[in-house]
Amino acid sequence: MKDSEQTPFTLHSQSSECAARRGEVKTRQGVIQTPVFMPVGTQGTVKAVTPENLAEAGAQIILGNTYHLFIRPGHKRVERFGGLHQFMNWKGSILTDSGGFQIFSLKELAKITEEGAAFRSHLDGAKLFLSPEDAVQVQQSLGSDIMMCLDTCIPYPASRKETIDATDLTSRWAARCRKAHDKRDRLLFGIVQGGMFPELRRQHAETLQEIGFDGYAIGGLSVGEEKELMRDMTEATTAVLPENYSRYLMGVGTPEDLVEGVWRGVDMFDCVMPTRNARNGSLFTQHGKISIKNARYQDDHSPIDANCSCYTCRKYTRAYLRHLFQAREILSYHLNTIHNLHFYLHLMADIRKAIENDNFASFRKDFYSKLEQE
Amino acid sequence: MKDSEQTPFTLHSQSSECAARRGEVKTRQGVIQTPVFMPVGTQGTVKAVTPENLAEAGAQIILGNTYHLFIRPGHKRVERFGGLHQFMNWKGSILTDSGGFQIFSLKELAKITEEGAAFRSHLDGAKLFLSPEDAVQVQQSLGSDIMMCLDTCIPYPASRKETIDATDLTSRWAARCRKAHDKRDRLLFGIVQGGMFPELRRQHAETLQEIGFDGYAIGGLSVGEEKELMRDMTEATTAVLPENYSRYLMGVGTPEDLVEGVWRGVDMFDCVMPTRNARNGSLFTQHGKISIKNARYQDDHSPIDANCSCYTCRKYTRAYLRHLFQAREILSYHLNTIHNLHFYLHLMADIRKAIENDNFASFRKDFYSKLEQE
Repeated sequence: MKDSEQTPFTLHSQSSECAARRGEVKTRQGVIQTPVFMPVGTQGTVKAVTPENLAEAGAQIILGNTYHLFIRPGHKRVERFGGLHQFMNWKGSILTDSGGFQIFSLKELAKITEEGAAFRSHLDGAKLFLSPEDAVQVQQSLGSDIMMCLDTCIPYPASRKETIDATDLTSRWAARCRKAHDKRDRLLFGIVQGGMFPELRRQHAETLQEIGFDGYAIGGLSVGEEKELMRDMTEATTAVLPENYSRYLMGVGTPEDLVEGVWRGVDMFDCVMPTRNARNGSLFTQHGKISIKNARYQDDHSPIDANCSCYTCRKYTRAYLRHLFQAREILSYHLNTIHNLHFYLHLMADIRKAIENDNFASFRKDFYSKLEQE
Repeated sequence: MKDSEQTPFTLHSQSSECAARRGEVKTRQGVIQTPVFMPVGTQGTVKAVTPENLAEAGAQIILGNTYHLFIRPGHKRVERFGGLHQFMNWKGSILTDSGGFQIFSLKELAKITEEGAAFRSHLDGAKLFLSPEDAVQVQQSLGSDIMMCLDTCIPYPASRKETIDATDLTSRWAARCRKAHDKRDRLLFGIVQGGMFPELRRQHAETLQEIGFDGYAIGGLSVGEEKELMRDMTEATTAVLPENYSRYLMGVGTPEDLVEGVWRGVDMFDCVMPTRNARNGSLFTQHGKISIKNARYQDDHSPIDANCSCYTCRKYTRAYLRHLFQAREILSYHLNTIHNLHFYLHLMADIRKAIENDNFASFRKDFYSKLEQE
């Protein structure tokens, strides 16, 4: 692999202050400006919003969950619709996970062997099986633009031995995924494991690069470890990943995590946090999170965030949003989600601009000082 | 009262075939073309949609529930926002009910005396009281454009004696409401009771006209009686109401009920049916209702109604909507509600056109023949 080779990732600029980079990922669906945040659309919808709401908030790519769609409505059904984009009416790009993480979350309902993952549906208990090859086939049926290899998840904490065994299995599965990947207009990303051992992370990153993928993800973080450890592991991994491929930190995280991930050279993020928090009434502002159910907002005629330009902040007060949340009105989840996604996606847009202007260090300082002003 | 006097209602045209009429109601917020359907916005939101969705569907006026808003967030709080229009960001007109129907629905939690209705909050059991004067004050605080008198509800079936007693109390309350009505830029409607006794309906309509209101509602129907009886009572009431005031059939009903109500001279309707059915997966089409959860739709690539131009029908298939409903996704309620409201509001627009063209009888025949084509 030479740095000059043609890859789906183009590096536009590199911060002079840290590992942050400004680039783009080309999928068959379009071009994604990075660093990017991907809203999570588990079951063929980003919960509580329309595709138009997503586009208005600036979403370029969303994530679909293979496990959920495999179980319902079924990947073959989605394929007959021409894929997930058509099914859900989303014009942007779609990244699908492999289903591995959800299967592992089933715990006693799942059994991992060399061959793959045997598990039971959380809906009806049906016995199901997903091999690395199946994971690629299912994602191809879903019409995913960026597919993920089936990987094994490593609990935290885990011994060095457990970590090596699981990481080795992930490598063998990755090679099988790579071989099964026959629709080459879609991208396939490998997932770097290695637990909390920097040198295992480094070795695994090298192993995956030998197999050769269209991008590299950092898996197995944000699983209960300290923030500092997560950030060190991120840094240890991006440091050994090739410059001319995109790096995706899976399932992360808070606004602070995004800033710190970008600082350490990450290009792509996904997390349920903005959408899930919205449905729990936890709303992001430049000065930190607010819990809209708090009685202090019942006569507050100001918007969630005075600096926000989203539909919700342009049209509604905190008092009204508190009322909707207390009354369990569906509109509450809709309006809160529009705001939180706007917050995340505009944070990423601001980060991209800061890297372009090579002042990300000052941006980061401002970001933290505003957080402290609450 | 002379037919030539200035009233908030203007009659544009009268069908030559039946009692249907095309007109308009002027409120301080704007002009409402009638016959009109009013979506129900119980708690300061029409459930699962935004004000923009309502406007796009053609809503001119919505209904707010005084009982609910009185309890939460409180009418004084809404008043501090400049009224319900500001609070919920709705630019059209608002009619509020008096709270009477909801209080009666509380059954053993409510006690009716000459003075008013004592009841307990369904939320926290707090002891509350609403007199006819309070009902007007609360609605004035809410900033309602069309307010309703506090009335007593008559169970079905009810004896002649029970009906007379309840209707007489409603008359005394109506006179007190009229007297309490001091913000005269808002309209106040009287509610004709009289149960299932045509001559009591006639007498009550006359009594209310003597008091003098800005419009007249037909209350106490759709309470369990046969459709035929409801239609006869509607006809018996509209027949004795003045031509130059609008008539509002409360809490009704199905698409067929709207057509039959208009046929009998009704100008205004409200009902939770389109919104509530939407959340239960029951969707209206020109050929009748469909239950979107039915397995027959799981591979159906057509829209809910091929003739519908709503956002949901333009963008999504029955199969996708079935998937969302099965997965209990919030987007399901949003998209279904957009469709059902569009169906109701466009039915009314088509009815208005048919009356303008004086071919409502033929419209009504077509309407039923399409229903039978399912």
